[in-house]
Amino acid sequence: MSIVTPWEVEGSIDYDKLIQEFGTKRISPALRERLMKETHEKNVMLERDYFFSHRDLDLVLDDYAKGKGFFLYTGRAPSGPMHIGHLIPLVFTKWLQDRFKVNLYVQLPDEEKFLHKREYTWKGVQGYAEENIRDIAAVGFDPDRTFVFKNSEYASNVYPLLMQTAKKVTFSTAKAVFGFTNETNIGMIQYPAYQMVPTFFEKKRCLIPAAIDQDPYWRIQRDIAEGLGFHKTAAIHSKFIPPLQGVHGKMSASVADTAIWLNDGELAVRKKIMKYAFSGGRETVEEHRKLGGNPDVDVSFQWLKMLFEPDEQRLKKIEGEYRSGQMLTGELKQILVDKLNAFLATHRERREKADVEKFMYEGKLAQKMWETTYEA
Amino acid sequence: MSIVTPWEVEGSIDYDKLIQEFGTKRISPALRERLMKETHEKNVMLERDYFFSHRDLDLVLDDYAKGKGFFLYTGRAPSGPMHIGHLIPLVFTKWLQDRFKVNLYVQLPDEEKFLHKREYTWKGVQGYAEENIRDIAAVGFDPDRTFVFKNSEYASNVYPLLMQTAKKVTFSTAKAVFGFTNETNIGMIQYPAYQMVPTFFEKKRCLIPAAIDQDPYWRIQRDIAEGLGFHKTAAIHSKFIPPLQGVHGKMSASVADTAIWLNDGELAVRKKIMKYAFSGGRETVEEHRKLGGNPDVDVSFQWLKMLFEPDEQRLKKIEGEYRSGQMLTGELKQILVDKLNAFLATHRERREKADVEKFMYEGKLAQKMWETTYEA
Repeated sequence: MSIVTPWEVEGSIDYDKLIQEFGTKRISPALRERLMKETHEKNVMLERDYFFSHRDLDLVLDDYAKGKGFFLYTGRAPSGPMHIGHLIPLVFTKWLQDRFKVNLYVQLPDEEKFLHKREYTWKGVQGYAEENIRDIAAVGFDPDRTFVFKNSEYASNVYPLLMQTAKKVTFSTAKAVFGFTNETNIGMIQYPAYQMVPTFFEKKRCLIPAAIDQDPYWRIQRDIAEGLGFHKTAAIHSKFIPPLQGVHGKMSASVADTAIWLNDGELAVRKKIMKYAFSGGRETVEEHRKLGGNPDVDVSFQWLKMLFEPDEQRLKKIEGEYRSGQMLTGELKQILVDKLNAFLATHRERREKADVEKFMYEGKLAQKMWETTYEA
Repeated sequence: MSIVTPWEVEGSIDYDKLIQEFGTKRISPALRERLMKETHEKNVMLERDYFFSHRDLDLVLDDYAKGKGFFLYTGRAPSGPMHIGHLIPLVFTKWLQDRFKVNLYVQLPDEEKFLHKREYTWKGVQGYAEENIRDIAAVGFDPDRTFVFKNSEYASNVYPLLMQTAKKVTFSTAKAVFGFTNETNIGMIQYPAYQMVPTFFEKKRCLIPAAIDQDPYWRIQRDIAEGLGFHKTAAIHSKFIPPLQGVHGKMSASVADTAIWLNDGELAVRKKIMKYAFSGGRETVEEHRKLGGNPDVDVSFQWLKMLFEPDEQRLKKIEGEYRSGQMLTGELKQILVDKLNAFLATHRERREKADVEKFMYEGKLAQKMWETTYEA
């Protein structure tokens, strides 16, 4: 059994069942090809089914083909430092922005986790937000087509639209979709409206790249958008990056050793992968050489497959060698360690140089956003 | 039976029962004397029991006596033009500000009525807000000690504090206090937090002059204030100004002819009072001369008593002459008409000259407020 809500992902996740439950669509091979063809570039996260589900992605591509355009929206709720699982959807988002040259809005709902958990303080969350924004700025979005904002700072600019959105959602709906109870605080109850608001920042269609646990918001958005004079939002959903401990579930921010953090050093990465990454190998080298390993349950292999080894040939070779027993677990893990450390080294470097002010206040789009007050 | 909530006041109102139900205190003669003594000036609204109930008014006066000071907070939810009943508590607030030289915050919750009623549009409410702000500015508050703000515009400045407040209030509480249901929209559900926020604008004690139907907000505020590091708010409650049609109930913005509007011309005032003001007179002049009138149910007399005839001697004389039949209904009404028209003429004149910008943006306090972001 699995539980998937925007605040909780637990247990073994059956993605086919999620598609059914949430009422989304699987990305068909044809649609995947069409997306990559439009962008003139292959993408490992699409090819390997890490982004696997969608709503109206076909309509987004239609709009693009007709010259109507579209825009991107994603977000990050500050609740601590970021791990690889938080960054990957942003990397995918950058790929989309680079290819389509469209505006991107990145929301930092600095109230969400604060409202959700008793132990978070406002000051604490602000500290996380500052760190997170650096990580986001490091992804390399187009500084004149990207607006990164904290909900608290941008509240006055969206207030009319926020109220117009909130007016359309009853407690009954919010309760059914998010499982709110009588003990839920009134801030948390209104919060979903703010997560929906950026889908109304332009009169074009909005495309949201995000993990599938965020979809409940888009379901409500799609019920009310047209009544407010906007498009139903489109979405492209990712799976969760499995935790080091096993291929099921989601890398968790609350259990430090299940994740690779963006600030983990080379040694830490090596140690963690070697120690914690669940292995499909055998108990002894002899046995492994004889019987071979199982890449299907091996977290290191799955990470390579989902995200870090774009070369199809090379991946096939690794899989074959591991399955046959020719490649040992330590060797497989080392491949991942090298990939991860290369990825993190680039990230650290970009993070140092990242111009946060540009994305938040000074870029072309940011400047325009600060001059705008949104109303349906 | 009567119903009193912030959005509905119906039926005959038993103020003693309200004090019991709400758990407030009657303003004792001693406390009333003390308040007027501190201010060195008598006030007809206090003397005639129009402001009749309170919370912690004694503690406010203690704080003032000890040099700790306090501040004032009141508001006006834009939902249409303002009538006399809307202005009177503001006139009382000015009296307090003049005497104590304290800061005053006037909130215009431009989302409240919009969220509450399906038929209100955002644009419509903004139009009302603009008109209402002119009327408020005309009251003559100290422009350097007064900050008049719309919730929509000031949202970013209060957002952290708003979230900290909202986190302290469960749906269960809001439901019990305001009668919210599953069909209430999520904006309305969070709204009470924003009405509480200005009580936290200073670390001093807050005193709220307002009609008693607003007290439910202060009840919740008093439950959470100390947990956030602030004082429980104090309040001084007025009765409702009775509608022209009878001494019970509340002058209603939704029934035009029950109220005297701030933009009613001299002739309109005369016509309305003559035609609609419920009279305690007899059916014929002969009968009236013989049996006398009943000032206790006569709306014109009650308005004079509550608000418009500060001279005790003159009021007693009017009462006596009316009760004896010496004064006819038309004559009594004419006294009120003259008072009302004098009051409105002064208001119109001040309204013309009112410097709205000063209260909202340019006065000393306003400037300071726009530079401040509030956090508990």
